[in-house]
Amino acid sequence: MRQKKFMLPESEIPTHYFNMQAVMPNKPLPFLHPQTKAPLRPEDLYPIFCEECARQELNQTDVWIPIPEPVREQYAAYRCTPLVRAYELEAALGTPAHIYYKNESVSPAGSHKLNSAIAQAWYAKNQGITNLTTETGAGQWGGALSYATSKFGIDCAVYMVKVSYEQKPFRRSIMQAFGATVTPSPSMSTRAGKDILTRNPNDRGSLGCAISEAIELAMTTPNCKYALGSVMNHVCMHQSVIGLEAEKQMALAGEYPDTVIACFGGGSNFCGIALPFMRHNMDGTRNTRFIAAEPCSCPKLTRGKFEYDFGDEAGMTPLLPMYTLGHSFKPASIHAGGLRYHGAGVMLSQLMKDGYMEAMDIEQLDSFKAGVLFARTEGIIPAPESCHAIAATIKEAEKCKETGEPKTILFCLSGHGFVDMASYDKYFSGEMQNYHVSDEDLAGFIKSADELN
Amino acid sequence: MRQKKFMLPESEIPTHYFNMQAVMPNKPLPFLHPQTKAPLRPEDLYPIFCEECARQELNQTDVWIPIPEPVREQYAAYRCTPLVRAYELEAALGTPAHIYYKNESVSPAGSHKLNSAIAQAWYAKNQGITNLTTETGAGQWGGALSYATSKFGIDCAVYMVKVSYEQKPFRRSIMQAFGATVTPSPSMSTRAGKDILTRNPNDRGSLGCAISEAIELAMTTPNCKYALGSVMNHVCMHQSVIGLEAEKQMALAGEYPDTVIACFGGGSNFCGIALPFMRHNMDGTRNTRFIAAEPCSCPKLTRGKFEYDFGDEAGMTPLLPMYTLGHSFKPASIHAGGLRYHGAGVMLSQLMKDGYMEAMDIEQLDSFKAGVLFARTEGIIPAPESCHAIAATIKEAEKCKETGEPKTILFCLSGHGFVDMASYDKYFSGEMQNYHVSDEDLAGFIKSADELN
Repeated sequence: MRQKKFMLPESEIPTHYFNMQAVMPNKPLPFLHPQTKAPLRPEDLYPIFCEECARQELNQTDVWIPIPEPVREQYAAYRCTPLVRAYELEAALGTPAHIYYKNESVSPAGSHKLNSAIAQAWYAKNQGITNLTTETGAGQWGGALSYATSKFGIDCAVYMVKVSYEQKPFRRSIMQAFGATVTPSPSMSTRAGKDILTRNPNDRGSLGCAISEAIELAMTTPNCKYALGSVMNHVCMHQSVIGLEAEKQMALAGEYPDTVIACFGGGSNFCGIALPFMRHNMDGTRNTRFIAAEPCSCPKLTRGKFEYDFGDEAGMTPLLPMYTLGHSFKPASIHAGGLRYHGAGVMLSQLMKDGYMEAMDIEQLDSFKAGVLFARTEGIIPAPESCHAIAATIKEAEKCKETGEPKTILFCLSGHGFVDMASYDKYFSGEMQNYHVSDEDLAGFIKSADELN
Repeated sequence: MRQKKFMLPESEIPTHYFNMQAVMPNKPLPFLHPQTKAPLRPEDLYPIFCEECARQELNQTDVWIPIPEPVREQYAAYRCTPLVRAYELEAALGTPAHIYYKNESVSPAGSHKLNSAIAQAWYAKNQGITNLTTETGAGQWGGALSYATSKFGIDCAVYMVKVSYEQKPFRRSIMQAFGATVTPSPSMSTRAGKDILTRNPNDRGSLGCAISEAIELAMTTPNCKYALGSVMNHVCMHQSVIGLEAEKQMALAGEYPDTVIACFGGGSNFCGIALPFMRHNMDGTRNTRFIAAEPCSCPKLTRGKFEYDFGDEAGMTPLLPMYTLGHSFKPASIHAGGLRYHGAGVMLSQLMKDGYMEAMDIEQLDSFKAGVLFARTEGIIPAPESCHAIAATIKEAEKCKETGEPKTILFCLSGHGFVDMASYDKYFSGEMQNYHVSDEDLAGFIKSADELN
C-alpha cells in the first residue's frame, strides 16, 4: 500500500524556533516611533507586548531560539502534525506533479495559529502577566489564544472583527467554550472603536481596527498585554515549527519541494511553512520557489507598496516597513476573514522586496472551487483562508500538466472549515461573488512615512 | 518530556476486522422474519443491504475478516488514529487513575463513523451498486457516508432526523459539500414518513423513523442499497479497527486497561473500542470492565428489556433480538442526536445479557459539564455523544480518587464538537435541561415478539 501520511513522533517536535532575521542578507529596516521617527528598541515595545516577545521581535542575531519545555509539552497535544501526499487531488487534476500538504488543521483549535498562541501565553505566564487581549478576524487566532490562555490560567479578551462575528457565530462559541470574553469590533468599549463608529455606525470592522481596540485595552489595563496572531516577526518565527517538521517529513517521503505555497494574510502561515526551506536558498544549496497566495480583494503583495505604515487602523502601533495597501484601506467582506489585513509582516516584506518569494492573487470564487475539489478528493473541508493556498497549488499543478514536469509542490493546509460551512453554503447557492479593487480604489490609501503622524 | 500521544504508522492499520460473533460463547439469536417468524439467512437481507454486508451480518464462524486494500487505502487518510494520555484531565480531577482516549475525532468526517462508511461504500461499489441511502441522527454518520461514497463515485441520499437537521445546519452543509442530497425526516417522500406526518404534522423525527424512510427508498429504487451507521453486527465489526489499534497503542504506553468506556447509541462506537479487548476476557487472560454510557433519556441498556423488536419505527426491518425500549419509543430531543435510538445492537445485547459488560446512564447536563472540562483540559471540544463517555470516565476516575486505586481507564472520543457549538451555547446560557423517563412512560412501548406483526 502506498504511504499517504508521513508522521514524526513527539520526540521530533522542534526544540528551537528558526529565526530568519538572523540569516537574511538584508535585515528588516527598523520599526520607527511614529512621532520622533527614532528606531525602536525592544524595551519600547514592553508596554504592549510581553518582554520575551518584544526581544524576539527585534532579534537579528540568534538563528535558533530555544522553545521552552512547557510550550513543547502543549505542542504535544497535536504536534508533530501530518505531512500528507495528496494522491487523490493529483489524480483528479491529472497532473504529474507530486502534491504534499502539511496538515495544521489537526490542531485542537483547528488551525496553525495555536503554534504561536501557546508560546505567547507561556511567555506571558512566565512574566507574571494575568490578562491577554487580542483581535481576531476569521476567529482562528482568537480560538487559539483562548485555548492557550486557558492552559496557563490567563484571562483572555478577544476583539472579533464584526463581519466575522456575524458570519461565524460558532467560532465565537468556541472561544467562549475555552473561557474567553468576545467583543465584536468596532465596539464602544475603546476610544478607537468609538471613533470609527461615530464616523460610520454601520462599520463592519477590519483586522486593523480590532488591533487598535486590543492594543488600547492592553495599554490601559494593569498587568494586561497584547498578543498578535500574525504579521510580527516573533509570531512568524513561532510558526517555523511547521516548516522544520515538514523538512524532515519531506525527507521521509524522499523528496524536496520545488515549490512551497501558503495563504497570505499577515504572513504567519506563509513564514511558518516557507522560511525553514528558504534558508537553504540563502545558503545556495537549494532553489525552491515560494508563493504567497493572497485574495484579489486585499492584494498587498501583488499591488501594494513597500512603505512605512501603521500596523493598525487607528495608528497606535510603531511605523512598520512593509508592503501595504495603506492602514485605512477597507478590504471587502470576503469569507477568508483571516486574509483581510492591509499589510504584510516586516520580515516577509523585506524578503519579498529582495526577490526571495513571489505572490499570486486568488479570486474568492476560485478559492472555494478549489476548496470543494480538495474536500471531495482529500476529504478535508478547508478553511476559506487555506482555500487560497489550494487554489494556487492547483494553478501550479495545472502548469505541470501542460509542461509534463513532475514538480514537487508543498502547501500548508492552515486550518479546517468545519466552522465555516455557512460560507460554503453561500458558495453552493451561487450567491458568492468576487471582489475587485481598482487602481483608483487603491491610490488614496497608501501614504509615505512623512505623510503619517 | 512525558509522552502524550501514542502513534502507529499506516503500515499498522489493521488488515482484518475482528468478528466477535465467532468467539462468543452464546451466539446471538437469529433475526426473524416479522410475519413467518422464520430465522433469516444472508440472502434474505440482500434486498436491503449489499451482499457482503449481509453475509458479514450473520457470519458466526470467521473470527478475522480481511479488510479490502481499497478500504485500507482510504483509512490511510486518517488512520491509525492517536491514542492519547489525558494528563491534564487527570490533573484537573486529582485522580490517581491513568486516563487514555482513542481519538477518532481526527477522521476527516469528524467521527469514528467513517470506519464503517468506507467499508460499506467499497462493498457497494464492488457489487456494482450506484446509489446508497441512509439515515443520520446527529449527522455524523450521514457526513461519513457522504464522504465515503464521494470517494467511490456512488450517489448518496441521506434522511436526517428533523430535530438534528434544525439544530445542526452545518452538518447538513458538510454532507452537501461532499455531494450528498439531504432530506429532513419524517418527510413526504416515503410512505413511512407520510404516515408519521399524517398522525403528527409536528413530529421532529427519530432515528427509527429515518431508518424506515431510507429502507423504503432502497427497496423501491433500482440499484440502490441501504447503509446503516450502527446497530448491525457488520457495522460494529468494521469499527473493531479502533480497538485493535488501541490494543497495540496501550502496549506502547506499557499499560492495559482496567476499564474501557464508550458512549452508546446503537453500539458501533462501543463495540469498536471494547470488543477487541473483550475477547481477552472471554479467553480468561484478562478481566477488564466494559461500560456503555447511554443518555438517561434513552436508557435501553439500563432500563430496557431483552426482546425481539423492530429496528425501525415503521416496522420494516426483520425482528431483532435486542435490549429495547420499544420501536415506537420517542426519545427526548437531546443534543446527542446519535444516541437517540430505541434499541441496542444484536451482538451487543447478547453480550450485555451474558454479563460481559455494564451500562451507565448519564444526564444531559452532566454530559456537557464533562465535555467543557475536557475541552478546557485536553483542548478538544467533544461531540455531545462523546461527552457521555467522558462523563462516565470522570465518574470512574473520581471513584479511583476515593479509593486511591491508580486504575487505567480507556475511553473512545468518538468525534469532535466543532459543528455542535449551538448545543454548547445552549448549555452555557443555562437553557439546557435534563430529561427523565418515568416507568410509566416506558411501560407502554415494550412489547413481546408475539405482539408484533
